[in-house]
Amino acid sequence: MVTQTDLMDYTPVRGCMALKPYGNRIWELIHEQLDQMFKDTGHENVSMPMLIPESLLLKEADHVEGFAPEVAWVTQGGTEPLQERLAVRPTSETIFCTMFSKWVQSYRDLPLKYNQWCSVMRWEKTTRPFLRTAEFWWQEGHTVHATAEEAEEETQQMLNVYKTFCEKNLAIPVFAGQKSDKEKFAGARATYSVEAMMQDGKALQAGTSHNFGTNFAVPFNIQYLSKDSKLEYCHETSWGVSTRLIGAIIMTHGDERGLKLPPMIAPFQAVILPIAAHKGGVMEKCEEAFNALKAAGIRVKLDDRDNVSPGWKFNEWELKGVPVRVELGPKDIENGVATVMRRDTFEKTTIPLDNLAEEIKKLLEDIQQNMYKIADEFRLAHTKDVHTYDEEDKIKEETNATSRNMPFDQTPFGDTCVCCGRKADKVMYFAKAY
Amino acid sequence: MVTQTDLMDYTPVRGCMALKPYGNRIWELIHEQLDQMFKDTGHENVSMPMLIPESLLLKEADHVEGFAPEVAWVTQGGTEPLQERLAVRPTSETIFCTMFSKWVQSYRDLPLKYNQWCSVMRWEKTTRPFLRTAEFWWQEGHTVHATAEEAEEETQQMLNVYKTFCEKNLAIPVFAGQKSDKEKFAGARATYSVEAMMQDGKALQAGTSHNFGTNFAVPFNIQYLSKDSKLEYCHETSWGVSTRLIGAIIMTHGDERGLKLPPMIAPFQAVILPIAAHKGGVMEKCEEAFNALKAAGIRVKLDDRDNVSPGWKFNEWELKGVPVRVELGPKDIENGVATVMRRDTFEKTTIPLDNLAEEIKKLLEDIQQNMYKIADEFRLAHTKDVHTYDEEDKIKEETNATSRNMPFDQTPFGDTCVCCGRKADKVMYFAKAY
Repeated sequence: MVTQTDLMDYTPVRGCMALKPYGNRIWELIHEQLDQMFKDTGHENVSMPMLIPESLLLKEADHVEGFAPEVAWVTQGGTEPLQERLAVRPTSETIFCTMFSKWVQSYRDLPLKYNQWCSVMRWEKTTRPFLRTAEFWWQEGHTVHATAEEAEEETQQMLNVYKTFCEKNLAIPVFAGQKSDKEKFAGARATYSVEAMMQDGKALQAGTSHNFGTNFAVPFNIQYLSKDSKLEYCHETSWGVSTRLIGAIIMTHGDERGLKLPPMIAPFQAVILPIAAHKGGVMEKCEEAFNALKAAGIRVKLDDRDNVSPGWKFNEWELKGVPVRVELGPKDIENGVATVMRRDTFEKTTIPLDNLAEEIKKLLEDIQQNMYKIADEFRLAHTKDVHTYDEEDKIKEETNATSRNMPFDQTPFGDTCVCCGRKADKVMYFAKAY
Repeated sequence: MVTQTDLMDYTPVRGCMALKPYGNRIWELIHEQLDQMFKDTGHENVSMPMLIPESLLLKEADHVEGFAPEVAWVTQGGTEPLQERLAVRPTSETIFCTMFSKWVQSYRDLPLKYNQWCSVMRWEKTTRPFLRTAEFWWQEGHTVHATAEEAEEETQQMLNVYKTFCEKNLAIPVFAGQKSDKEKFAGARATYSVEAMMQDGKALQAGTSHNFGTNFAVPFNIQYLSKDSKLEYCHETSWGVSTRLIGAIIMTHGDERGLKLPPMIAPFQAVILPIAAHKGGVMEKCEEAFNALKAAGIRVKLDDRDNVSPGWKFNEWELKGVPVRVELGPKDIENGVATVMRRDTFEKTTIPLDNLAEEIKKLLEDIQQNMYKIADEFRLAHTKDVHTYDEEDKIKEETNATSRNMPFDQTPFGDTCVCCGRKADKVMYFAKAY
């Protein structure tokens, strides 16, 4: 589906994809909307080097252990072999920390709340478009704080930004919670995640937010002079989401007809299809409708190709997941209406042409809500409380589930552990994962 | 100046810089405004892999000769040596062409008008922030056309987009013209450039647009089936501008007090400075002014720091080149005005508070125009027609000038060549260059 819908294509570079205009535009819309949320919460964008000297990567022991096996190494510059190899960044904690140690002197410099949009490279053995690719596009936030409390607050704030963004903008409900120690990020003190459920029942980790405490500040020597002139270590966080969100959109909302895009991130929110385009007045009305929708801020496409039939176009735009299809033929024009189909329910209605933009705006909002509702019902129907070992055993056997995260709301608490039978002190989500 | 104004910082990665929030924000504004111009001329964004297999780079002979000496090579993935080395892209013609040969089949697929925003890497021996760095951020447009005429039209259209953007958005006048055969891009049939003049009289190549003809289409086998079912080679273009534009802004407009930013790309177009901030009502009025300016769409900063004096702030914001400074103290408030200074002329005026946003908007427009006018006068005063060998010899001796480009307007034509004395058939700009 990802190639048929022109989201991406495979390239001759192992595990690396090309984002085609349609897929790239979804990522642009995610970028624009999420970036605004970052700015609204006081973050600033920066751009760091894409190459990181090996010596920097080696400074934090857990971090290098986690990432070294999947680093692509630059060993030659022009015709000269390099004295020290350079990692194509798999993530940028080590270069951010190097610069932070230079930029932070006093409590007055804090907090630093930075983010960058870029691509990173992880030399994965098995890759899958939008889920696990060698190169992927993402944002990575990196922040520095004076106190442990502020760092924890930031970590949770950004997890919440991700939760809101997934639910509101992508219509994807998520479970927010803390990862187990085994599943946390290499070098983190605590990792939080938002986990979405795909239609095959598997979990997809859609975003993570890490509290590093002073784990990086100590080896990278990031210290500040406090108000009372003491030298203190800084507390840091990082957080990221990637083009994997496009994978989440495909697998949360798609159906047997193809993609189903939430209106907020659809490159085209509506497509106008002329019916019997050669008949007098049809193209003119289509152009009028196009201009009206565009003027109302709707991302709209007029498909005026004359070498394919309307039926062919219906299929193509359904496949591509455009939320609203607007048909305009001689009969519609005679009646002063357009025939409108919504992609989420395939429901057809007629809308008076003189109120088209306003009505389609409402329709788009309704589709966005409805897509969330359907995904949320599916998620809840496929999430089960487990209280006995027998049940858990059965789930494991059936699904190979792994721990996803621990919800912040730990009720029901005081249950017994499904595994050992002793008093439980944690509630944990399990699922088979991507 | 580039470090003092927080545009960038040096990093431990040879020749690579970090863009700090202030510098990165200028690049974001350039990106946003230029990207809109690309979209308005029918271009779409894509994202291509950052690594390019050596075999692809080798396909076009002139191209590889031009770029191979400055490529950073990935030779190892994880713990395994690679069978084929991968170039960190120095530019992306070869990977675009590889994909184009897959994406183009029929005349119906044409034109493809793509662009990407990314960073590229060139292993330069000597680097200078914003002028020549190993890694730099840029956009690269890549287009495919059915005919030579369309490709030439596209090449010139994009050169014109750059000219308009430099002059209107950056207030930098440029000479647009064609590069000599010696100075054209590796693999291009024709290269056009916009050349700006810095305040030291040197030329800065601010943007280039290349017509490849079929130079890449032949080795990469990019062919289409024409309307009358003939297999034809495609005609291609590419064009780019980079973070070098920030270097152009610094050196076109800056003065002994620091940066002087054109309002259209200034991260803060106005900064509000409270005077005697502890006095009753001052901070309240400052916040009111801040909200009024923000609501009017002006990028505004309220500098409410209490640990530095107003005088210190004056210097800092002058250094950082903010176009308009708004002072608000008890006397101003008594008189119902703000004291406003424009950075381009240091002129001070008072503006009634109830009309502040409107007046500052006008002021910003005036500053934008005036900065262009000053730069244009400088440029014209330092551009000289040369008709005799003696004069040219003197210029060469003084400046080490090289050919920049040939203006489209070739009047005065029919002169004699300054070098050989024979009848000249070209007018050419010469300058010492960065």
